[in-house]
Amino acid sequence: MKDIAKDLGVSVVTVSKVLRNHSDIGEETRERVLKRVKELDYRPNLTAQSLVTGRTFLVGLIVPDLVHSFFAEVARFLSNALRQEGYYLVISSSEEDPSLEEREIDQLLGRNLDALIIASASASPAIFRRIEEQQTPFVLIDRQFPGFPANFVGVDDESVGRLATNHLIENGSKRIAHLRGPESTPGVQRLAGYKHALQNSGLKFNPAYLLSPGNVDVDSLQQGYSAMKKLLAIEPRPDGVFCYNDPLAIGAIDCILDAGLRVPGDIAVIGCGNLHFNTSLRVSLSSVNQHSRQIGECTAQLVLQMIKSKTPLPPRNIIVEAEVIARRSTLRS
Amino acid sequence: MKDIAKDLGVSVVTVSKVLRNHSDIGEETRERVLKRVKELDYRPNLTAQSLVTGRTFLVGLIVPDLVHSFFAEVARFLSNALRQEGYYLVISSSEEDPSLEEREIDQLLGRNLDALIIASASASPAIFRRIEEQQTPFVLIDRQFPGFPANFVGVDDESVGRLATNHLIENGSKRIAHLRGPESTPGVQRLAGYKHALQNSGLKFNPAYLLSPGNVDVDSLQQGYSAMKKLLAIEPRPDGVFCYNDPLAIGAIDCILDAGLRVPGDIAVIGCGNLHFNTSLRVSLSSVNQHSRQIGECTAQLVLQMIKSKTPLPPRNIIVEAEVIARRSTLRS
Repeated sequence: MKDIAKDLGVSVVTVSKVLRNHSDIGEETRERVLKRVKELDYRPNLTAQSLVTGRTFLVGLIVPDLVHSFFAEVARFLSNALRQEGYYLVISSSEEDPSLEEREIDQLLGRNLDALIIASASASPAIFRRIEEQQTPFVLIDRQFPGFPANFVGVDDESVGRLATNHLIENGSKRIAHLRGPESTPGVQRLAGYKHALQNSGLKFNPAYLLSPGNVDVDSLQQGYSAMKKLLAIEPRPDGVFCYNDPLAIGAIDCILDAGLRVPGDIAVIGCGNLHFNTSLRVSLSSVNQHSRQIGECTAQLVLQMIKSKTPLPPRNIIVEAEVIARRSTLRS
Repeated sequence: MKDIAKDLGVSVVTVSKVLRNHSDIGEETRERVLKRVKELDYRPNLTAQSLVTGRTFLVGLIVPDLVHSFFAEVARFLSNALRQEGYYLVISSSEEDPSLEEREIDQLLGRNLDALIIASASASPAIFRRIEEQQTPFVLIDRQFPGFPANFVGVDDESVGRLATNHLIENGSKRIAHLRGPESTPGVQRLAGYKHALQNSGLKFNPAYLLSPGNVDVDSLQQGYSAMKKLLAIEPRPDGVFCYNDPLAIGAIDCILDAGLRVPGDIAVIGCGNLHFNTSLRVSLSSVNQHSRQIGECTAQLVLQMIKSKTPLPPRNIIVEAEVIARRSTLRS
């Protein structure tokens, strides 16, 4: 690198930044450096570099499911923002299994990544203490733990539950069911928001209308379909359903239509995540938008600040405002 | 590691395998090792280990788009298969841009990953020669280059085009349009299959029915919608459309329905990729299944063989059989 810098009359830092694809280098300089790099057939050995700098330029991301579009979207925006500064994502899926998540965290810690980003499937923050001990910067996304101070980027899930349920109430639903999420924060908090909204509108919470499908981030379509089938057998049946995520809601709508009922005429349905194909469904799906792009980009900025800071930064809590996107599945008029 | 092995009366290799989450260790041994590791609060330094073994236990994956469910599904199955042996995926998206893909390959090569897996957006295999020079094992998935001998796992795209087009013909379409893919192999080969199928059935190829939407793996819904709008303006308009991928097909169906026409009554539509929500769409979508699971798992096996082999292995060509999954969007009866 020194030779290249000397040849071109630029600093070693500049050469290093070009080699890591850093964004704050002018196009002309970048091209000159890359040309010279090619002529010399020089390849930086980042493994050796990382022993010197103490950085690997790798950031770990653990999500419950890669195929769930919400997490795929977050991963995409994260990855694009990080590589502007030469960082790459090492991706792992916990398959919504807390013990697998724990093993994956250990594995990634052992690889000395510069930071970890976790959408946790755990019910408790115990495993994150181990990350703190190792002083690896980490950010929780989508799922946080009340009372556990940690960096967090995501929506306020209580408000997600409240917004979705209020939207169903405003559009005429009175017997509102909830296909709930797992025992992690989003599941628990969305359920709390659902109950608060019912209470504030003077509607009674009916425990029979609360169902807990299985693995909601894996095979959700199927899970939503089966759970809805159970709801249809209840007398009187619900006239509105708030689903923990969009795939569950898509499965629920399929079940309602297959039973010969109308959406939203007989039963209104709202999901969460605002997936990009929601408008193309049998009935276009209303959803709470969690802003995957904002979550991905904010998390990238936060992680880069933490990696570059010479002293540990106090934990930050970045709340992205959720909003209802109303489509045909809830609009009765 | 030596101390732990001695304490428990097992080999160092066994301890190392447990620490890398290797699958061929019995559950009892695994638990004993992990218990002792926790007692000692031992953390393997894999960066140092990787300088000794020459391995990073990281495999790079470059895909055109992470949010496209097909690639997300491949990534999931790949990742799950690799971690059985302690390997992790470093993921990057080329956003369907060959020059970004080239930069990403250089970046990942500089990180000394043990292997690279690439679903290429390039029109030529030139950049892969650089990977060969560095003797990093690599596997092309989904997209190959005729005449360039390299490891490949994917479908035969000519047969994908033929199967899809024949399916439309068998179900009564006579004026068949094609929303084609990019200039990479799948785009070119599926187009060739489409033309062959028309020819074999005595149908004339009409250049006006061949459209090239923009970035087909990013914003495909929108691209499919706009391209279909152009097709609807042609006189006589097509009565069948074979789309390069499912998102394009979903956009095309939306456009046809919004124009007050019927699918498949007026125009039959088939896509490619068999996305997991295809049955929940406004019109359930027929598609050519490319078997993301088989591609992910075969690629993982191939990559692990290459990494472990002491001598370079001759390139292998693993063709996964494509098949038509017929749903309502093409079935006129």
